[in-house]
Amino acid sequence: MGSEAHVSDPECCYPMSGGDGLHSYSHNSTLQKKGVEAVKELVNTTIQDMLEFNDLNISGISNTFHIADFGCSTGPNTFIAVQNIIKAVQLKYNSLHQNDPSLEFRVFFNDHINNDFNTLFRNLPSPQDFFPAGVPGDFHDRLFPKASLHIVHSSFSVHWLSKIPEEVTNVNSPAWNKDSIHCTGFSDEVVAAYSTQFQKDMSNFLNYRAQELVVGGLMVLLIPGLPDGVHCSGTHFGANYDVLGSCLVDMVKLGLISEEKVKAFNLPLYHPTTKELEVLLERNAYFSVPRIESLPAHLPASVQSITSFMRAIMEEVITQHFGKETVNSMFELYAKKVSANYIEYIQKQRNVFISLILKRITT
Amino acid sequence: MGSEAHVSDPECCYPMSGGDGLHSYSHNSTLQKKGVEAVKELVNTTIQDMLEFNDLNISGISNTFHIADFGCSTGPNTFIAVQNIIKAVQLKYNSLHQNDPSLEFRVFFNDHINNDFNTLFRNLPSPQDFFPAGVPGDFHDRLFPKASLHIVHSSFSVHWLSKIPEEVTNVNSPAWNKDSIHCTGFSDEVVAAYSTQFQKDMSNFLNYRAQELVVGGLMVLLIPGLPDGVHCSGTHFGANYDVLGSCLVDMVKLGLISEEKVKAFNLPLYHPTTKELEVLLERNAYFSVPRIESLPAHLPASVQSITSFMRAIMEEVITQHFGKETVNSMFELYAKKVSANYIEYIQKQRNVFISLILKRITT
Repeated sequence: MGSEAHVSDPECCYPMSGGDGLHSYSHNSTLQKKGVEAVKELVNTTIQDMLEFNDLNISGISNTFHIADFGCSTGPNTFIAVQNIIKAVQLKYNSLHQNDPSLEFRVFFNDHINNDFNTLFRNLPSPQDFFPAGVPGDFHDRLFPKASLHIVHSSFSVHWLSKIPEEVTNVNSPAWNKDSIHCTGFSDEVVAAYSTQFQKDMSNFLNYRAQELVVGGLMVLLIPGLPDGVHCSGTHFGANYDVLGSCLVDMVKLGLISEEKVKAFNLPLYHPTTKELEVLLERNAYFSVPRIESLPAHLPASVQSITSFMRAIMEEVITQHFGKETVNSMFELYAKKVSANYIEYIQKQRNVFISLILKRITT
Repeated sequence: MGSEAHVSDPECCYPMSGGDGLHSYSHNSTLQKKGVEAVKELVNTTIQDMLEFNDLNISGISNTFHIADFGCSTGPNTFIAVQNIIKAVQLKYNSLHQNDPSLEFRVFFNDHINNDFNTLFRNLPSPQDFFPAGVPGDFHDRLFPKASLHIVHSSFSVHWLSKIPEEVTNVNSPAWNKDSIHCTGFSDEVVAAYSTQFQKDMSNFLNYRAQELVVGGLMVLLIPGLPDGVHCSGTHFGANYDVLGSCLVDMVKLGLISEEKVKAFNLPLYHPTTKELEVLLERNAYFSVPRIESLPAHLPASVQSITSFMRAIMEEVITQHFGKETVNSMFELYAKKVSANYIEYIQKQRNVFISLILKRITT
């Protein structure tokens, strides 16, 4: 089932850094944590206003409420997010069903098959007020039985693409991305190729989740995006990618990596604007969009924390493309470059967290 | 939820050897595989005869059939077992519901929180005809929402105890196990203490699974046991434990481990007889027992394969108690001892696989 319609590049599958060590995602994801905490009240209000238990096919025999987090990584942010949801659902349920049997919660934590689930499981909060399960697999594919979820959550995940758009690695294409490792804005054709890939992936994501959610079910998405009308290179995220690209160029000069490898390297992620998402969502018939908001994203402020933040996200991408032995020297260089250009760096525009609330409707 | 009634010793939690290497469980579990294959036809017949879809609360909206394997380790045996079940369920469903929407299968793979789920997930068959999920946690506890499973399976797992019975480590108890690392038969009091612990654990297991299974749901258990009326030491399993115990004594003499550590060491597992299980099941009101059978267990025959089999099972127990550095020398010694006593060893009685089919009934 899971693999029938798989469209992703199997090599385009980069979990966040595993384990609990110095460079791990679990110790270097405070930006993402702030995002999750910032939408807490929005999630609560949404659930109180919009969740109708009668629609949800929660049976009297098994009073189980199913939540899934897509792109959970190793914690702790995924636990904060699902616990916010559970608290809000419990609150609403208790106010309406005082004499009914209490709800039980099954929470599915999803990420790539090479995510560090061992660490995720060891990081689970204790005691738990939910039954946890890990679901390995690519969320650009079907991962759950039909109509088996009540609330879907995904933070800082759907901006990862299922593959690098083909044009950007094609030397004969006008979208060949020869001078950059991302679509930070130097070439309109490159930006368009990335944007098209994001739209395909996001449509797939929405269509698969529409099958998995019950009618009446809710979806909460938090996406790191761009302010409307701003090029990626004008923001902190874009600056990070441009610095990384310039490290790669320097490492070629130092003979540490080959020029061919750098030319073939592109980051498989895309930061959309709110406007882009609105257009895309208008074309989807499965969901209503009661809320779409954007909040300023406060990236880490010190050289050390910027470097750690980037390393936790990019270590696996770098390792798979350039080899594990390059990682340390790459991020040493990275820290130096951020430090040298610090004033310019902090003057870049803030990115935004785009929060979306979607409701699965009858079609 | 999961942790409310936890009774296990948190240190009594030994997964099979992880990874895919030479000494891993995934490469050294052919005995267990034979057991799973031996009950294939029994499982199929049981499902054709006893599974009544109308009882199972499978909704028309989400046509999902839920299977859980308790004590799954890292594969591949768990995949063989659940695929047998899926094939049999599909066969029966298709014969009865030709015009209904097809079933989807959610399979939950459960094992201890320190099981190597990363390897389990990487070993998943591809393509899959089910949606996989990993459930970390101790099966001596609640792990699933009420009435959320249709078929439960567990092979070679429920003979692991939740803790060492207290009396066997108490120097003032008549059940103090001073001369052995298991209840292989030298002391009736030790055997009784182990048996009592097994009965407690098995009752808990049945009671928790009774909550998790829908009425009408089935449970398939495969337990490595003893022939009725035979002491453990008279069987291959018992001989293995006695050889391991004698290795420990030799390692004390060689100054490699301390005598205190050996005295405090007991294996947290118990092999019941069919009769013991029958008595225990008679006391349980939640299940009918349509089938209880025993098959001869053919342990590995060569010194090398006996040693690999034991190492894959015991490496984690040994590591946690004596330290990782002792494992290689212990199993080198183990192989020598098995070799030196090979004729005596192979003359021991065969163990049995006890296969149980239970059906969740209304109480």
